[in-house]
Amino acid sequence: MTRKAAIIGGGVIGGGWAARFLLNGWDVAVADPDPEAGRKIGAVLENARHALPALYDRPLPAEGRLTVGLPLAEAVAGADWVQESVPERLAAKHAVFEAILAAAPESAVVASSTSGFKPSELNRTGDRVVVAHPFNPVYLLPLVEVVGAEARTAPAAEVLRGLGMLPLVLAREIDAHVADRLLEAVWREALWLVKDDIATTAEIDDAIRMGFGLRWAQMGLFETYRIAGGEAGMAHFLAQFGPALQWPWTKLTDVPDLDEALVAKIAAQSDAQSGARDVRALERLRDDNLVAILRALKRQDAAAGAVIAAHEATLPLPGTGPDGLPVMHALQVPPSWADYNGHMNEVHYLEAAGRAGDRLMVVLGADAAYVAGGRSYFTAESHVAYLSEVRIGTRLTVTTQALAGDGRKLHLFHRLWAEDGEAPRLAATVETMLLHVDLATRRVSHPSAGVAAAAQAMVADHERVPRPDRVLLGRRAG
Amino acid sequence: MTRKAAIIGGGVIGGGWAARFLLNGWDVAVADPDPEAGRKIGAVLENARHALPALYDRPLPAEGRLTVGLPLAEAVAGADWVQESVPERLAAKHAVFEAILAAAPESAVVASSTSGFKPSELNRTGDRVVVAHPFNPVYLLPLVEVVGAEARTAPAAEVLRGLGMLPLVLAREIDAHVADRLLEAVWREALWLVKDDIATTAEIDDAIRMGFGLRWAQMGLFETYRIAGGEAGMAHFLAQFGPALQWPWTKLTDVPDLDEALVAKIAAQSDAQSGARDVRALERLRDDNLVAILRALKRQDAAAGAVIAAHEATLPLPGTGPDGLPVMHALQVPPSWADYNGHMNEVHYLEAAGRAGDRLMVVLGADAAYVAGGRSYFTAESHVAYLSEVRIGTRLTVTTQALAGDGRKLHLFHRLWAEDGEAPRLAATVETMLLHVDLATRRVSHPSAGVAAAAQAMVADHERVPRPDRVLLGRRAG
Repeated sequence: MTRKAAIIGGGVIGGGWAARFLLNGWDVAVADPDPEAGRKIGAVLENARHALPALYDRPLPAEGRLTVGLPLAEAVAGADWVQESVPERLAAKHAVFEAILAAAPESAVVASSTSGFKPSELNRTGDRVVVAHPFNPVYLLPLVEVVGAEARTAPAAEVLRGLGMLPLVLAREIDAHVADRLLEAVWREALWLVKDDIATTAEIDDAIRMGFGLRWAQMGLFETYRIAGGEAGMAHFLAQFGPALQWPWTKLTDVPDLDEALVAKIAAQSDAQSGARDVRALERLRDDNLVAILRALKRQDAAAGAVIAAHEATLPLPGTGPDGLPVMHALQVPPSWADYNGHMNEVHYLEAAGRAGDRLMVVLGADAAYVAGGRSYFTAESHVAYLSEVRIGTRLTVTTQALAGDGRKLHLFHRLWAEDGEAPRLAATVETMLLHVDLATRRVSHPSAGVAAAAQAMVADHERVPRPDRVLLGRRAG
Repeated sequence: MTRKAAIIGGGVIGGGWAARFLLNGWDVAVADPDPEAGRKIGAVLENARHALPALYDRPLPAEGRLTVGLPLAEAVAGADWVQESVPERLAAKHAVFEAILAAAPESAVVASSTSGFKPSELNRTGDRVVVAHPFNPVYLLPLVEVVGAEARTAPAAEVLRGLGMLPLVLAREIDAHVADRLLEAVWREALWLVKDDIATTAEIDDAIRMGFGLRWAQMGLFETYRIAGGEAGMAHFLAQFGPALQWPWTKLTDVPDLDEALVAKIAAQSDAQSGARDVRALERLRDDNLVAILRALKRQDAAAGAVIAAHEATLPLPGTGPDGLPVMHALQVPPSWADYNGHMNEVHYLEAAGRAGDRLMVVLGADAAYVAGGRSYFTAESHVAYLSEVRIGTRLTVTTQALAGDGRKLHLFHRLWAEDGEAPRLAATVETMLLHVDLATRRVSHPSAGVAAAAQAMVADHERVPRPDRVLLGRRAG
């Protein structure tokens, strides 16, 4: 049964939550008195549809149903998850939670996006409300800080993992949780640097994104410093750098006054730095960069990429393609696959077919364990026929016909189907000839009896589908 | 003439500088009294050789000559750049700079890697010494903070740009420059979190790399917050979040005491988090992740990726391949191109050929301006013949033979040459048929007279090379 999330407050964070739930197949009801809420959530959702599915090499579930503009009590009725994202004023939050608790099912998780308040402040009685503090853009970044009573946070974390997020369940509550304490510290120092004319906002941003920001996209503070300590490890690093690190501490802990002059200065510098792009263009730039980084990390199976890979593994493939063959690969074409002609670059036709081939290997039993056992298939030849252009955001589905699978050869024919509004059309065909290889000698060899039998059975089964009109490989020409 | 860098102090930072210079074609002399210096620099250099060239889709210059173990005066003799990276003790640095200034050419840039000291502290007289503060790993991260007298920093910045780095020239000197002030602030807060048992080192690292660390790999603090402010911009963000941000400031500015108990606690948590991998494995993991992120950003032409793209554009291609044809593409196979069979994935053979094709377009005059004018070539068919495996780190060179270029078709034959120690061997051939397209109608059309003439001239020129034995495209078969 489709699950339902109620989103209370439809700003940037609430809209991000709405998108995260919707694109993972949940129905979403948004309560927000702002008459513009529908438009604002629509804008976030448009960004999310462009970006979140592009992280995965599997299709996400069919999008849930979105309802905007309901009264709070109606929005939370029947909800499995209620997420509060109203402004950071405790009295306002208390009023909202009172209304939520009066109308939401007993079984619903009730969570707050607060970046500052502790569960003990949010709950006037009991422990029902937990903190689930996400990071913008909520539809892309995995991190959610989860704080509250253990009986409440465990089921909440389970749901968040199902949304592809990384719940960081904190053992103890604290003002501003963990990440925002770190962010506040940076913010405070950055304000000093601007105020004292040491650096502009653009220079500070470069100091971050050209240096430690790159490190922190994959390892955090401690693991990075552990490496800096070299072979002697962390205690050595602390012994060596501890005194040097302590030295500036004594000077940099004052709090700058965020007065009118400083606000005006920051705003002017920020305009000079980023004003050439409006906020929509900046969001798109940010999201395309994040998708590119996250996909790169997914391929490394590292850091946030590992979270996405684990989520992807839980996503089912659609069963059957337009030609009646099983679907071996399906994805929404990511922005990073575009080239200067404004369409999917030729390379990624082969990439999609290659992933379908990887999947077919698993089906045949030539899986990771088989490879670990010293045998695999290598591609010997590929022929790609590009039949039509594919745009970014298009849903691509790959079916694979096994044409021959006797002995050491495996002859496959992939069809790439593009869906962008109309009926699926054949965008390309990729014919490949693979050879079975002994990984110790790197020479052609016979597959195991099991794999050989599976290949032959698949070829026999696929004879129900007409053989392609044009087959180029498996003969010698020219 | 080959330029020379002298590296004074061969630790992690000095070794990183040595690698950055060497791999950009400079000769490098290292002065370090440590008898282990040669081995330590060798380890850094091995990592750098694996990682830095993998950022580029062009070959770096031929590696310079490394000399380790010279006395300081000999190391700096004839140097164009002298980089001091000795421990952070001012007296030691003063002694080193006295020796450097006595022996180095007048024209040499003299720079310090110091993370804390100001130029006015490093220079006992004059303004010769500048700060050039890099970030680990020095061979991968673009950022260098440059501080000092303007007449000194301008030529220094020029050299650093030539090494593919991003010199951030600061207008005013300050303790700990800019980035380390931000890092110190985070470090201070992180120590509190560990000391107070709010979070472990692993949890803090996740709070960074699963959330804001990803943002900061591409936009910094201010641009990120500008987006959070939505359509109303930065002043609105400050007005809205200023008060909330101020609130935790009042509590979080104390300095924790880095006593024995806290050191032991951090070391134990760090062992639990990262102890399963030794420091070499962690370095390799970090570098492979950074290469993947930086390549992803390069493709977006964003943030640090734009710095690498700009540097790449200055790197010349080798002239002629083993078959006498001009080289259209050359690169060192990056770690992120590996697949589960431990070699370059099939997709990247086509990618390398595709980039060669892009380059050929420029040569023919079908360049970015031509595409902007509404015309381009699209690939209609590709045939890849995989002839031998290619390992990560292999130098790959692509030559392209134009087989036919009459009218609307362009028929190319790419040869991929692999070099991994022995003579270049043919690793694959990629035959492609391209069609000239009108970008307004997306239909096949005739090229401009200039492009048509260039294509015909190229085909005629390439007839001096034997036609490939096996040509599959351009006919209808099967």
